[in-house]
Amino acid sequence: MKTFILLFQCADQKGIVAKISNFIFEYDGNIIIADQYSTDPEGGHFFLRVEFYIDETRHTKASIEAAFAPIADGFKARWQFYDTSRRQSMGILVSKPDHCLFDLLYLWKSGELAIDIPFVISNHPDHEGLVRQYGIPYYHIPVTGTDKKEAEILAIVKDADFLVLARYMQVLTGHFLAAYGRDIINIHHSFLPSFKGANPYEQAFERGVKVIGATAHFVTPELDTGPIITQIVEPVTHRDHVDDLVRKGKNLEKRALSQAIHLYSEYRVMRYKNRTVVFA
Amino acid sequence: MKTFILLFQCADQKGIVAKISNFIFEYDGNIIIADQYSTDPEGGHFFLRVEFYIDETRHTKASIEAAFAPIADGFKARWQFYDTSRRQSMGILVSKPDHCLFDLLYLWKSGELAIDIPFVISNHPDHEGLVRQYGIPYYHIPVTGTDKKEAEILAIVKDADFLVLARYMQVLTGHFLAAYGRDIINIHHSFLPSFKGANPYEQAFERGVKVIGATAHFVTPELDTGPIITQIVEPVTHRDHVDDLVRKGKNLEKRALSQAIHLYSEYRVMRYKNRTVVFA
Amino acid sequence: MKTFILLFQCADQKGIVAKISNFIFEYDGNIIIADQYSTDPEGGHFFLRVEFYIDETRHTKASIEAAFAPIADGFKARWQFYDTSRRQSMGILVSKPDHCLFDLLYLWKSGELAIDIPFVISNHPDHEGLVRQYGIPYYHIPVTGTDKKEAEILAIVKDADFLVLARYMQVLTGHFLAAYGRDIINIHHSFLPSFKGANPYEQAFERGVKVIGATAHFVTPELDTGPIITQIVEPVTHRDHVDDLVRKGKNLEKRALSQAIHLYSEYRVMRYKNRTVVFA
Amino acid sequence: MKTFILLFQCADQKGIVAKISNFIFEYDGNIIIADQYSTDPEGGHFFLRVEFYIDETRHTKASIEAAFAPIADGFKARWQFYDTSRRQSMGILVSKPDHCLFDLLYLWKSGELAIDIPFVISNHPDHEGLVRQYGIPYYHIPVTGTDKKEAEILAIVKDADFLVLARYMQVLTGHFLAAYGRDIINIHHSFLPSFKGANPYEQAFERGVKVIGATAHFVTPELDTGPIITQIVEPVTHRDHVDDLVRKGKNLEKRALSQAIHLYSEYRVMRYKNRTVVFA
Repeated sequence: MKTFILLFQCADQKGIVAKISNFIFEYDGNIIIADQYSTDPEGGHFFLRVEFYIDETRHTKASIEAAFAPIADGFKARWQFYDTSRRQSMGILVSKPDHCLFDLLYLWKSGELAIDIPFVISNHPDHEGLVRQYGIPYYHIPVTGTDKKEAEILAIVKDADFLVLARYMQVLTGHFLAAYGRDIINIHHSFLPSFKGANPYEQAFERGVKVIGATAHFVTPELDTGPIITQIVEPVTHRDHVDDLVRKGKNLEKRALSQAIHLYSEYRVMRYKNRTVVFA
Repeated sequence: MKTFILLFQCADQKGIVAKISNFIFEYDGNIIIADQYSTDPEGGHFFLRVEFYIDETRHTKASIEAAFAPIADGFKARWQFYDTSRRQSMGILVSKPDHCLFDLLYLWKSGELAIDIPFVISNHPDHEGLVRQYGIPYYHIPVTGTDKKEAEILAIVKDADFLVLARYMQVLTGHFLAAYGRDIINIHHSFLPSFKGANPYEQAFERGVKVIGATAHFVTPELDTGPIITQIVEPVTHRDHVDDLVRKGKNLEKRALSQAIHLYSEYRVMRYKNRTVVFA
Repeated sequence: MKTFILLFQCADQKGIVAKISNFIFEYDGNIIIADQYSTDPEGGHFFLRVEFYIDETRHTKASIEAAFAPIADGFKARWQFYDTSRRQSMGILVSKPDHCLFDLLYLWKSGELAIDIPFVISNHPDHEGLVRQYGIPYYHIPVTGTDKKEAEILAIVKDADFLVLARYMQVLTGHFLAAYGRDIINIHHSFLPSFKGANPYEQAFERGVKVIGATAHFVTPELDTGPIITQIVEPVTHRDHVDDLVRKGKNLEKRALSQAIHLYSEYRVMRYKNRTVVFA
Repeated sequence: MKTFILLFQCADQKGIVAKISNFIFEYDGNIIIADQYSTDPEGGHFFLRVEFYIDETRHTKASIEAAFAPIADGFKARWQFYDTSRRQSMGILVSKPDHCLFDLLYLWKSGELAIDIPFVISNHPDHEGLVRQYGIPYYHIPVTGTDKKEAEILAIVKDADFLVLARYMQVLTGHFLAAYGRDIINIHHSFLPSFKGANPYEQAFERGVKVIGATAHFVTPELDTGPIITQIVEPVTHRDHVDDLVRKGKNLEKRALSQAIHLYSEYRVMRYKNRTVVFA
C-alpha cells in the first residue's frame, strides 16, 4: 500500500468532490482524510487536499497522473500528486543567530520532521561544527553589500525542493527568486504586518505593545509581505526590555518556523493570491 | 436554494465519500463544505459533516431522506439531515450566577446565535426581570434537597431541541436524562478532568495551579465526565486569590459555553464514545 | 481603616522606596502591596504604586498629601494619592455596535467594575432603552461630517474622571482632548500597530493573518497611536471570512476593553512617553 | 558594583518593607527591583524579593548577612542573600526522551541560561555523545526495578545547587529527597493535577480533552503533587491522536521546563506550603 496526497485548486463548480472521490474509489483507493475549502461556494475558488492509499502493485504515480489529467483539465485546475514515501529536500540558509537552525536540526534528527536536509548555507562560518556533526554539508558563503553571491548560492540550492531562511539576514533579489522558482519559507521576528524590516523587537519595544509575535511566510519579491503560513504570539509587559523581547521572541520564531515546515512537509499549505489555505 | 447539513457516522470503509458526494451531485446539489474524520482509516470509525445546497422547488428534506436511506443502510450508518432554515430551540436552566445567562441572551438578541430560546428555568427568582425584558418565559422552580421537581421541569423542557445548564447547580438524575433523551450541554468551571464537583476554584487555588480553565461538555449520568466540547484556559499567578479566580473564570465560562453552543447550533459537534468530533 | 493608593513617578535615584515606605510606616500605615519598576536603575525613570491602609480617624487624605509633598518635591516626582473608597466616574461614548456597551453595563451592574457610570453618549438612538433600564442617563447626539458637536459633548463629560470610547466611530479632535484634559480609553479592533484606521478586519482578511487582536489604548491626537494598555489576540484560519473575524473580534474587543478598564479603575496603569506601565 | 538578591519570607506585619529598604539605603545600595506579595495583609504570610547593587569594595556578602541577621530575626523570617555573579550548578537526570535535555544544553551553551551544568546522569547510554560534545561529564547509571542505584546517584549530585529531572522516568525515593536536601525540579507531561502518573497523553486522549499541557514542579515524596512552578498549555482537536499529543507535548514540556529553570536561576521562585510565589 502506498499513500499519495493530491493538492488541487480551481474555480469552484458543482461535482468536484464527487468526481475526484469517484476517481479514487475506482482505483480501489481509500481516502484517509480529505479537506476542502471554498472562498465562496457561489463563484469562488476551491481547494482540496486528499490523502489516500492505493495498491502500488497495480498503479504507479505516473499511471494515476495520466488517468487524472483529463478530469483536472475539465475543471481547469492546478494540481499535483505527491508520493508520501519520498521525502522532500529542504535547503537551509542562515546568518548568525542559530536558534532556529539548532531546532530544525534536532527535529530532523529526532525524526519529527520527515524531510532531508541536503545542505546548510551561511554567510557566517560559525555553525560549521554543529552542522557537520549531523553529517550535513556546510557552505560558508560570505556576502558583501555589493556582492550577494546569488549565482554561487543558486548553484547549490537548485535541486532542493524548497528553501528555508532560518534567520538569514540577506534580502534575496527578485532575480534569485525567479531563478530558483520554488517555495522559500522565511521566519520574520514580528507579528506581521507590524514591524516589517530591520530590528522588529526594537520597534515593538518603542511602540509599547503588550503582545509580540513571529511570522513564518513565503518569500516574495517585496520584503516581508508574502503569504503567511503561521503566526505565534506571546504576551509581554513593560518589564520586558528589548533583550527580553529578543529572548522570548527566539522561542516564538522556533515554534512558528518549525510548525510552518511541519505543515509544509505534509503538503498542508496551499497558496492563493497573497494568502494561504492551511489544512492543519 | 436551501441549505442542508448531513451528519453521518459509521465504521470506516472504502467509497463512503464517493457515494455520498455522488448522491449530492445527482441531486444537483452543491457542496459548500465537507469535513470528514476517521479514527483510523484501517478499521476505524468514520465521521462526516456535509453542508450543501439544493433546489428546494425540486426536492424536499423528506424526499432526500427517503432517497438517502438505502445508501446509509448499506454503510450501517447513523445519520441525520438538518434544514438550516429551521432554528433549533435551546432551553436554559440556571441557578444564581447570571453571567452565562446574560451572555447567551445578548448573543441571541444580537443574532450571533441563530437559535430560539423558548424558556429559562431557574431555582432562583432573581433573573425574572432580565429574562422577561427579552420576551422569554421564565419559570421559577424552587428545588429542595429532597424534591428536585424533575417532573415539573420535564414538562416544560420536553419540546426543546437541546438544553443548556448555564451554571445550574442542581445535578440532574439519570432518570431525567433518559426521559428528556436529547443533548444537554453543561458548563463546568474548571479545566476538566481537574477539579470535578463543587468549588473548583477553591480546589485550583489550593493546588496552586498556574492556569485555570472552563469546560463545556455534554451531560451524562456520571457527574462532570461527559464528552468535552470546548475548553478555554487562562494563566493565573500566585496573586490570584479565590475571588480573582472566580472573576477570571466567569469570562472563561462565558467563552467556553457560548463557543460550544455556537458550534452545536451549526451542527459541528458529533459524539462518539466519551469524546467529541468538532468540525470547527 | 481606609485604603489609599499612591502612584508616583520620577527620575530614578537612590532611596526612593526607603523614603516612601518609611513615610507610610511613620503614619502607622500598612503596605498591602507595592509594585515598582525602573526603566533602567542607572539613570532611568522610576514608577511606584503602593496600596496601603491607614487609620482614618487620625489622618485624612489632605493631611497625608500635605505631609508627603516635601518628600515628593525632593525627588521632583509626579504623584497622586487615591482614596479607594471613592469610585471613579466613567463616561461612555458609543456608536452603533453595542457589544462593548452591553458588557460594560453588565460588569458595572454585577459589581465587577467598581466605578460609576454617570452617562452614555451616542450618535445613534438605538441604545436608549438598554441604557435607561440601568437607570443611566442617555444622550443621543447625532453627528454630521461638518458638525462633531464637541462643545455639546464636552458640557456633558466635563466632570467624568475618565472617558471610554466603547466603539465610538467619531474621531475626537485635538481641541476636544485638550479641553477635556483627562484620560480617554479607546478600543481599537485590531492588533495595533497593524491595521490602523477604518475596517481593520477587512485589512486583516486581505493580509491573510493567522492571528487577530484588539487593543485598548489611551487616545492621543494622532489616530490609533496612543499608549497601549491591553492587547488580546486569537488564532484564525483561512476559513474565517471577514464576518467571522468581526464576530470573533467582538469577543476580543470586549475582553481587551473590560480588562483595561478593570486595571485603570484600580489605578494600575501609569503613562510614560508613549508607553504604559501596568502593575497587574 | 555587585548585584545581590534577597529572598525573604515571614508572617506579615507592619514596617517590613520600610526596615529592609532602609537597611539597603544605609548600605548605600540601590534597589534595582523589589517584588513583594502577601497572602493576606491582615495576618497572612509575606514574601519579598529585592534585587539591589552595592559597592563591593566596601561590603561583602558575609558582612551584609551579619548586619541583616538581627533585622530578619526581629521578623522571625526565613531569608537568604544570593550573589548574582556566582552561577548556580544544575545537575540533570534524564531517561530516554532527549528533547528537554537537548533544549537545556542549547540554552546553556547560548548563554540564555546563566547556570553551570556539572553533569548529566541517565539510566540510558544514548545521550553520551551529545553530552560529551558540550564537555559535560556523563554518567550512565542503569537502574533496575529492585536497585535504583540511589547511593551512586547521590554521590554524584550531592554538590549541585539543584537538580532537574528532564524526563527522568524513575521515581526518586523519599530517602533520596531527604538525603539530597535541596530543590529538584521535574517536568510532568500533563496539565497537573489532571493525568498524574504514567502515560498522561494516553489518558488525555481517552478523556477527549481539548487542551493539553505540561507542568514543571518541585519534587516531593508524593508523586506529581509538588508545588507547581510553570504550566504551559495548547489546544488540541479530535484529529490529534496519541502520537500527535506526544509531539505537541514535547514542545510544551521544553517550554514549561526551560521557563521554570530560567525563573529559578534568577531566584524568582519561592516555595510556601504546596504552592509557589513566582516573581516573574
